[in-house]
Amino acid sequence: MTVRFDRDYARTLDRQDLLAAFRDRFVIDDPALVYLDGNSLGRLPRASQALAGDLVTGQWGERLIRSWNEGWFDLPERIGDKLARLLGADAGEIIIADSTSVNLFKLAVAALRHQAGRTRILTDDLNFPSDVYVLQGAIETLGGRHALEIIPSPDGIHGPVDALLASLREDVALVVLSHTVFKSGYLYDMAAITAAAHAAGALVLWDLSHSAGSVPVDLNGAGADLAIGCTYKYLNGGPGAPAFLFVRRNLQERLANPISGWMGQHAPFDFALAYAPEPGIRHFLTGTPPVLSLALIEPGVDLLLEAGMDALRAKSVAQSEYLVALWEQVLRPRGYVLKSPRDAARRGSHLSLGHAEGWRINQALIRELNVLPDFRAPDNIRLGIAPLYTTFADLHEAVERLRRAVDDQIYARYASQRPVVT
Amino acid sequence: MTVRFDRDYARTLDRQDLLAAFRDRFVIDDPALVYLDGNSLGRLPRASQALAGDLVTGQWGERLIRSWNEGWFDLPERIGDKLARLLGADAGEIIIADSTSVNLFKLAVAALRHQAGRTRILTDDLNFPSDVYVLQGAIETLGGRHALEIIPSPDGIHGPVDALLASLREDVALVVLSHTVFKSGYLYDMAAITAAAHAAGALVLWDLSHSAGSVPVDLNGAGADLAIGCTYKYLNGGPGAPAFLFVRRNLQERLANPISGWMGQHAPFDFALAYAPEPGIRHFLTGTPPVLSLALIEPGVDLLLEAGMDALRAKSVAQSEYLVALWEQVLRPRGYVLKSPRDAARRGSHLSLGHAEGWRINQALIRELNVLPDFRAPDNIRLGIAPLYTTFADLHEAVERLRRAVDDQIYARYASQRPVVT
Repeated sequence: MTVRFDRDYARTLDRQDLLAAFRDRFVIDDPALVYLDGNSLGRLPRASQALAGDLVTGQWGERLIRSWNEGWFDLPERIGDKLARLLGADAGEIIIADSTSVNLFKLAVAALRHQAGRTRILTDDLNFPSDVYVLQGAIETLGGRHALEIIPSPDGIHGPVDALLASLREDVALVVLSHTVFKSGYLYDMAAITAAAHAAGALVLWDLSHSAGSVPVDLNGAGADLAIGCTYKYLNGGPGAPAFLFVRRNLQERLANPISGWMGQHAPFDFALAYAPEPGIRHFLTGTPPVLSLALIEPGVDLLLEAGMDALRAKSVAQSEYLVALWEQVLRPRGYVLKSPRDAARRGSHLSLGHAEGWRINQALIRELNVLPDFRAPDNIRLGIAPLYTTFADLHEAVERLRRAVDDQIYARYASQRPVVT
Repeated sequence: MTVRFDRDYARTLDRQDLLAAFRDRFVIDDPALVYLDGNSLGRLPRASQALAGDLVTGQWGERLIRSWNEGWFDLPERIGDKLARLLGADAGEIIIADSTSVNLFKLAVAALRHQAGRTRILTDDLNFPSDVYVLQGAIETLGGRHALEIIPSPDGIHGPVDALLASLREDVALVVLSHTVFKSGYLYDMAAITAAAHAAGALVLWDLSHSAGSVPVDLNGAGADLAIGCTYKYLNGGPGAPAFLFVRRNLQERLANPISGWMGQHAPFDFALAYAPEPGIRHFLTGTPPVLSLALIEPGVDLLLEAGMDALRAKSVAQSEYLVALWEQVLRPRGYVLKSPRDAARRGSHLSLGHAEGWRINQALIRELNVLPDFRAPDNIRLGIAPLYTTFADLHEAVERLRRAVDDQIYARYASQRPVVT
């Protein structure tokens, strides 16, 4: 690919983009803003904007309690079934519930109790710290009998696959990994890890937060056991929208939800005083879901289904390869270091760039240069590509502004202090 | 009180109502609808309708990820602090998080681990079945070492206070009760139960779902330890809006959140791999909250603070006494049985009426008579009084239509089958 660093070349690529029209399906009020944080909070679909008005005024304000029987009660399964089509699962294997962290707790505790006698849990140091915290809490809650092993990445970029495989002995209960890791964007081979874990009798729980809607996922094709993930990144479900969980069909009746609540009860309106789990995926529900945030997940999932994950992946790879090429030409000479895999097959839909002045450059981008990337300590500038609305022109502009931040010493106007929240 | 069963009398009472103007602060599209289910889903405040548009289009669509630093991150504490003013707690003692069930799990597990060596948990058979399910799950998760005792109510209406007090021995770890019970509306004496439990060394966890915004609650005045509750009933927070939890200040550092997540981590953006709880109430947070459903809790709480709980309680008692008087004159002769306490001091803000044809009458009300009550098996018709918008005319109309359902045999048009969801 002979990539030219000029605006016209980027526009040519945009004109050739078969998914270009999807950008108009989103609310974009400031066309000059280069938004590369769809991996943290996806943009607002126009259909969600319209649905929000009906949800609030029509369904809540006018239909009131009747809306529970007019659709709300079925939302966790209905949207879960749609998501299943996107993630290679069957209907009845995915449900929307709670937050990613709560779902991780539920499934990890269920899996550990199922794997009685096995005491080791494997993860890596590229996983979300939040997932590690939840596992630490789950272990304490279960009496401190399990050991969590955090296997280090060899280079801070790639997953420690060899070390993971070498650690997979018959005392391993559970492997918990981010399918696409949040800092570098490294993408695990789900089928290979799952097969190796199964050979040792371990279960695998995948966090798909950075994968759902950004890379092809084939849960059943990979023989996956369990998965969780959020809906507010590439799925465009809205800020903090409830998360999803996947439990392979033939594991569902063997795993008990530790947070057994009325939404997972068989015949909840009988008001019996003994918990009797509803068969299937529903017994992994707990309490009443936040309906407005829940219902607004659907339009984003519909858009992804309409575009198709193969086309999205093709565009994502083309865009990330374009960005790598521009990094090589323009940014590497200016001190930017690529902290993501070079091999597109092992990379999700975002690129991380390190720089000695990463924090100050990031401040310059946000405050002055109208670019919204994402910053992850100590010096990672993450550039998220959301193929539904990210253009090649966006990426060209991002590189141009990253160049200016250094060449024009714009970063130097900002203090080098660390963020409280980014 | 010499109550007359006629419309003009009801309208006179409405004209004397000092809170009458608050009704206009809600979206009411069908004035003929008698909505008596504010104890299940509160009405939509006009301010929430306006806020929803800004949240979706402005905060999500336009400000995008920047909104986290422009207010979203603080919402759980900010709204929690407002709720604290309503519930007799201090700032920093209440936070909004997850669902009521998840919060119950977190606090119950934390309390049981804190009360090491004590193995009994007391509740009653008037409690939400859902709370009982969660306690059953918590016990299993902790290894099955605790016993849950469900103390029966003497009459299905009043709390089994004497039996509870007699059961409070030094092996009791935790007492879990609904402050206002969901079927009969019985209202526990929080201070008396708490004092008795403390004398035995037990902690008490109150479910305030039917109390918050409907009856005066003085958590610190009662010496309360722990509380949870939902925000979508009398608080008018919207369908399934996230729940709240209260932990008494001097218990906060002694209790560990079993579902330890990034929102409760000290300095979460350091991305350290060891969980280190944020001091104070924040470490009872877990994952990313559903921002839209969360933010919409605030206008409803503001309305209640503006009206004042004393004025609301005075109106609630006047309205429930009015309804009891009409029941006595009009409905008792027609087979309706009062299944709530007669003593207003021991009653929340809803009345339960039983009837041999309860289910069919309820169907007639919903489908034909434009009344929305709430039905709880086997035959309870619940009439919820939300003093912010319920009028005396509403209550008069409800009684008139309950009368017609029987006198005109309207109920007989409906099958006597049981509901799947009501």
